[in-house]
Formats: sequence, structure tokens, C-alpha cells
Amino acid sequence: MTVTITSAEVHDVRFPTAAAGDGSDAINRGDYSASYVELRTDDPSGAFGAGFTFTNGRGNELTCGAIRALAHHVVGRTVEEIVESPVAFWRSLTADVQLRWLGPEKGVIHMATGALVNAVWDLRAKLAGKPMWRLLAEMPTEELVASVDFHHISDAISPAEAAAILDKGLVGLKERLAELEQEGFPSYTTSVGWLGYPDEKVRALTRAAYADGWRAMKMKVGGPVEDDVRRARIIRDEIGPDALLMMDANQVWDVDEAIANMALLAEVEPYWIEEPTHADDVLGHARIARAVAPIRVATGEVAANRVIFKQLLQAEAIGVCQIDACRIGGVNEVLSVILMAAKFGVPICPHAGGVGLCEYVQHLAIFDYLRVGTSLDGRMVEYVDHLHEHFVDPVRTRGGRYLLPEQPGYSATMKPASIAEFSFPDGPAWR
Amino acid sequence: MTVTITSAEVHDVRFPTAAAGDGSDAINRGDYSASYVELRTDDPSGAFGAGFTFTNGRGNELTCGAIRALAHHVVGRTVEEIVESPVAFWRSLTADVQLRWLGPEKGVIHMATGALVNAVWDLRAKLAGKPMWRLLAEMPTEELVASVDFHHISDAISPAEAAAILDKGLVGLKERLAELEQEGFPSYTTSVGWLGYPDEKVRALTRAAYADGWRAMKMKVGGPVEDDVRRARIIRDEIGPDALLMMDANQVWDVDEAIANMALLAEVEPYWIEEPTHADDVLGHARIARAVAPIRVATGEVAANRVIFKQLLQAEAIGVCQIDACRIGGVNEVLSVILMAAKFGVPICPHAGGVGLCEYVQHLAIFDYLRVGTSLDGRMVEYVDHLHEHFVDPVRTRGGRYLLPEQPGYSATMKPASIAEFSFPDGPAWR
Repeated sequence: MTVTITSAEVHDVRFPTAAAGDGSDAINRGDYSASYVELRTDDPSGAFGAGFTFTNGRGNELTCGAIRALAHHVVGRTVEEIVESPVAFWRSLTADVQLRWLGPEKGVIHMATGALVNAVWDLRAKLAGKPMWRLLAEMPTEELVASVDFHHISDAISPAEAAAILDKGLVGLKERLAELEQEGFPSYTTSVGWLGYPDEKVRALTRAAYADGWRAMKMKVGGPVEDDVRRARIIRDEIGPDALLMMDANQVWDVDEAIANMALLAEVEPYWIEEPTHADDVLGHARIARAVAPIRVATGEVAANRVIFKQLLQAEAIGVCQIDACRIGGVNEVLSVILMAAKFGVPICPHAGGVGLCEYVQHLAIFDYLRVGTSLDGRMVEYVDHLHEHFVDPVRTRGGRYLLPEQPGYSATMKPASIAEFSFPDGPAWR
Repeated sequence: MTVTITSAEVHDVRFPTAAAGDGSDAINRGDYSASYVELRTDDPSGAFGAGFTFTNGRGNELTCGAIRALAHHVVGRTVEEIVESPVAFWRSLTADVQLRWLGPEKGVIHMATGALVNAVWDLRAKLAGKPMWRLLAEMPTEELVASVDFHHISDAISPAEAAAILDKGLVGLKERLAELEQEGFPSYTTSVGWLGYPDEKVRALTRAAYADGWRAMKMKVGGPVEDDVRRARIIRDEIGPDALLMMDANQVWDVDEAIANMALLAEVEPYWIEEPTHADDVLGHARIARAVAPIRVATGEVAANRVIFKQLLQAEAIGVCQIDACRIGGVNEVLSVILMAAKFGVPICPHAGGVGLCEYVQHLAIFDYLRVGTSLDGRMVEYVDHLHEHFVDPVRTRGGRYLLPEQPGYSATMKPASIAEFSFPDGPAWR
């Protein structure tokens, strides 16, 4: 019995977060938004696939438009033919002979690819009756390998190497799953140190987060460095010497500036410095990584595609690989990055926050641990306590850890009432 | 007397080129299109600025939409305040706290930035009564340096280094200009070897181009390598041993594949191999460059921004720097790339073709020679004989060389009749 994708409904959904100062950093100040798509089908159960890409407000109409421009590669297909030829399907989106020029494989057009590809995977998981992490973790090795486009990364990983990693990941999988079901997945919180917050708010939030069980916290840096040092001391003072303090510069520094500023910030013993410079600067990240060690360099939330991740790994530019679920081309491309990171021995710590990113990436991190990385050492998922209430299957946390999602799918489905309320520009929230 | 930009009129202009097989290569098959903008002003002369970014057809509505999304940073400004604070103006487009997320500085949003920034420069040149190349070549060093955003490239070039290059470029400028006025600017043709053409058409076109005076020709590669070798032999056979034969793979190869295929193609002594692999793969280009020397590696037409160019130069990955006029953020960012290339000793050979790209880049190449590079050794502008008739001030060539543009502006203004005829989807050509 085949299931045909019959239509793609696109929604421009925006939450007015900019006014509150939430999510402010050295370079972004946004209204967290989703270019959200539901793929309708002819399945008698009414099953549909939900996917989205995250944006920062203005311009969300462009990613919505790009989803519409690409949708003809999805609508009319059967789920079976996509499952049969996953790379051919993926390339129909990424190598469209006209649209490819608009990237290639980057920015608006690639983010839209991510939304559509993720919606297909959400549909697959719902039809299989499994949460996405379980669908992936239980998938035969050959099917996972067949989902990866090795084009332009074959100099870093071969299909045979990927298969070996995935086969090895079957060993002990049940024990790791039992552990996660008991303990949840480690995470850290970014909610304590946005640049928009005054010192006393940072102190109070840090104290509250520590009391709630968080032992890893991230602050934004990239303002005047003396302010960054002062705020870092407040957090370190509150969390003691053993908890982890991460820093995120959101690309604001030049290469030499990053090295100089991290020399000053080293006194609070940061665990990592995230996005120390321009996201495209592989060589710059590599220079910074050599200079700031043992502080790790982390990046990935705006890494454009698998080719950038490949180079970050080849150049030993990152010690932490921050995949994003919908900046790059959806589950298929994320799989390629997870596999390369495993080969290069770099742990995955997904980027989350925004709207819906926590819902997405928990599945990827759980799959990575169960089937690829096989160790929790250095693995955590970002957590931001924003906007979960708009999702049908929101993340659940306990004591600083994510609990395993249980509902079928990729946790990407938004509540119809939220879509209606926050649709831009005509929803009640924006009128 | 101030001139205020009063509105931005955006046009989605598409030419139905895909059906003819023109412009077909290993990865693109497009309807050459322009996301075209005219900035109207309150100047009594009626002066307006014209700019565009080039796309390949489908999706041109996205770059048009991005121009509209960015236009509020331009409309309402005076030309004088932009001239006064060029980097502040440029960053208002590239560092918009919400739109930046859609790049950053890449793809749809950055191409739209290029269209708007170029329209402002076209307006400046028209108001000054000079062709763009002359406006730039005669501009004081400090004003040129002040037009460059050194953010994220300061590890490769400093303002002082840029100023020294530009000052040195004043020496002998008059003599170089007299030479260009006499001889024109060297170019090469890409019209002989598109993948869509049969062998005998390649032979006939090559013979005709040689007879017309062309001594440098580019062919597309990236099909079955034995076909590429056969076609390359035809061209070499026609042009003799002394003319230059360039090859363009349009990113289709993996890194090791590029190295292997170039070993086979080396027999015809190619001058350069262009886009041998994925445009984002700086490390891959560097490996290929080491392996195929003395054949040069060339790239740039889809290099996303100055940070990618910086790394290509730092890694010694390219021997030819192929700036594009409207893929990156317009004249300001192109200036930064031209200056970095000069510092690293790599000649500029701009990417052209498509629609209007020849019109744009001739100005950049002439400026580069007059004021920055100061040698014609290894410098040529791509030439494709398509769609020039739609421009008010089209390129003119003689014996394989571009003649100097004489009209004020950036040669970007399209004929109103062409805009009307080819507007998508409602123009007569598309109805």
C-alpha cells in the first residue's frame, strides 16, 4: 500500500520575541520564527509530515517562498519511492538545475530543503509509529548509509567507513537505551546569560538554574570584553569550579581578536568558545583552536552544509560539532555530519533554542549516542526554555536532562491554534 | 545639494534560454534571469541607480523578495550619507539583526545585497558623470579604503596594506589607461564548448572564434571524462599550441575525482581548471591545486563572500581569482577581494556570461588593472555573447578584447522594453 504526498501547506509563523530581549546576542535580535510546512497525504489515517526551518523574523517569507519553490519535487511522490531512492530524492532538491544557483546548498534555499526533507522524515516516522530517534537507531545499516549523499565528502568518509561505524553502534545499543530511559539525555542551558540581560538577572537566573539541577551553562560574549569578563565571573561564582561554563561569541570577533579575548576570558576556565569568528572561516577557526586549547572551539549552527563541516573536521578546527536540524538539508545531511564527526572523534552537541529546535535535535542527539557516538562523554544538547508550548509533542526535561520523546514522528508538529495565532502578518498576534 | 533615494522598483526579469541549450553545463541548465532594481531619486535630472543580481531562472522571485526585504535600508537615505559612511551603510544590509540569519552573507540574501549595493554605486557614478571603472580608478585612496569592510578579513589584509596597494597603483595609471583606450581589455570566450553542444558544433564555433581573434577559450567538462578529453582535443586541434584552453567543471567532481580527471585532461595542456569541486571546499581546492600544478585552479563565481575568498588565497588554493559582480555584496565587497588578491599575488579574471555580468565586470577588471593589479599578465575577462541587446549601454568587443565603457554608471541599466517583454510571469515572452 503506497502513501502519496498530495500537497504542501506552508505557514509563515512568527513569535514576537525581539521586544522581550530574549535571544539577544552580539549579532542577532529576532522574532523567533518558523517557515513551517505540512505535507498532506492520501493515507486513510490522515497522517501528515511536519517540518520547518527556523529563522529570526524578517525574511521568514523568503524561506517560506523557497519551500514553495521546491515543493514540486515532493508533492506527487510516494513515500515508498523516497525510501527506495533517498539520495535521488535529496538531490532533486539540492541539485535542481535552476534553483541550485541560489545557494548552492546554503542559505535560504538550503534551509527550505531542510524543512521539506525533515517533513518527509517526520511522515516516515509517524507511518512507522516510532519517534524519529528510534526509527533511525533501529534502521538497518545499509538503509542509513543509502540515505547519505557522499558527493563532495568522499575524501573524508566512504560508505564502507560509515557502515563500519553504524555496525559497531549496534553493540551495546540496548544498554545505552536503557540508560537513557532511566536517566534522560544530558543537556545545558543557554537561558542564563543573554547579552540583553543585566548582571543581577544573570546572577539570579544562574542560581535558579543551578538549583534546578543544571551543571552546564552557556553565556553570550562579544560585547566589550571587560563586560564579558565581569558577567563570566558572576556565573562562575554561582556555579562553582566543577560545573561547565560555555561561551558563545556569535561570530562577532575577527580571528586575532578572538584569540586575544579568549586569553582574557580563560581565567574562568570556559569549557568551549562557540562561534568565535565568521561561520565560513574554517582556517580561522583552526587557528583559534590551536591558540585557545585546551578550551574547545565549537561551531555549527550556521555552518552551511556538510562540506563546511567536513573541512572543520579535516582542519581540526572544532572540538565540539554543533549540528543544527534545519540549517542544512535535513536528516539526510545531518546523518553525513554525525558520521564524519564520529570518524574524526569529535562529539556532537546540537544547537537548539529558537523555536522548535530543541524538539528536533533531541532525536538526533539520542540517535547519535545510541548508534554512532556510543559515549556520553562531552555530549549534551542545548536547552532554551522558550516556545515549547506551541508544539504537539514538546520536549520534556528533568534535572537538566531531556527525557526521551515517545510519540511517533520528529516532534515538529505545531498546534493548529498556535499556527493561527502567530501567522504573519494576518494572525491575531500580529494584527 | 543632497540626493535622496525615494523608492526601489524591483523587477523579476527572465530570459527563456534553457530551451536553446545555451548555458548548459555539468550542473546548471537555466533561464538566465535578473532580479533587477532601480533606485529612484529626487534628483531633478531624473537620475536613478540600476542594479541586479543574476539567477538561473526558477527562484528569481526569491532574490527579488530579498531585495524588497532589504530595501528599507536604502530607501530614504541620501547619497551623501552613504558616501560619508560606506561601511555603516553596507553593514545595515549585511548585519540586519534579523535578516542576517538567512545567510549569513551568502545565498539569496547576500545576492540581494549585491543588487542594491551595485544600484547605489551605479547611481553614484551617474551623478558623477563617469563610468564606474573611472569613478573607482580616480577615487582617493582613503575613500576606497573606507569603502571596504575589514571585519573578518583583518587577519589577511589591513587598511594600511590596502592603502599602500592603492597608492602604488597611482603610479603609471595614465599610461595603463592610454594602453587600454588603444587596445581594449583582454578577454576569453566561453561560447564554444557548452556541454549541450555536439562535437561538430564545438569545432565550428572554435574555428569561428579563432578567426574572430580569440586566443583564449573555455570549455565545460564534467561529463564522462572520455567525452571531455575528446572535445578538448578538438578545441586544441583548432586553436593550436599557443592559444589558451581553459576548463570548467562547475563543481561536479569530488576532490580525488578532480585530481584523477585532470591527470587525463593534462595532455591538452589546460591553462586552468575552474570549479573543480564544491565551491565551499577551500581545503579541497588547495589539495587539487597542489596535485594539478602547473595547471592553475580557478574559482569564485559562487564563492559566497570575502571570507571564502580570503581562505582560498590564504590556503594557496587558487591561481586565478574569479570575482563575480553580484554574487557577493556588491562593489564594496568586491573591492575587498580585489585588494586581497593583489596582496596574495593572484590575478583577477572575473566571471561573466549569464545576463548582464559582462556589462558589470568589465568595470571591475579595468579598475583592477589600472589601480590595483597594474599588469595584464594573466588577466582576462570572460566573454559570452548572450543577451547584451537588453542593456542601454552594452559591452563592445573588438578582436577578442573589451572596449572601455564610456557612458556614466555601471552599465547595469536595462532597456524598459526588455523589462516589460521578459517580466515574469506576466510579460509577453512568458504568457
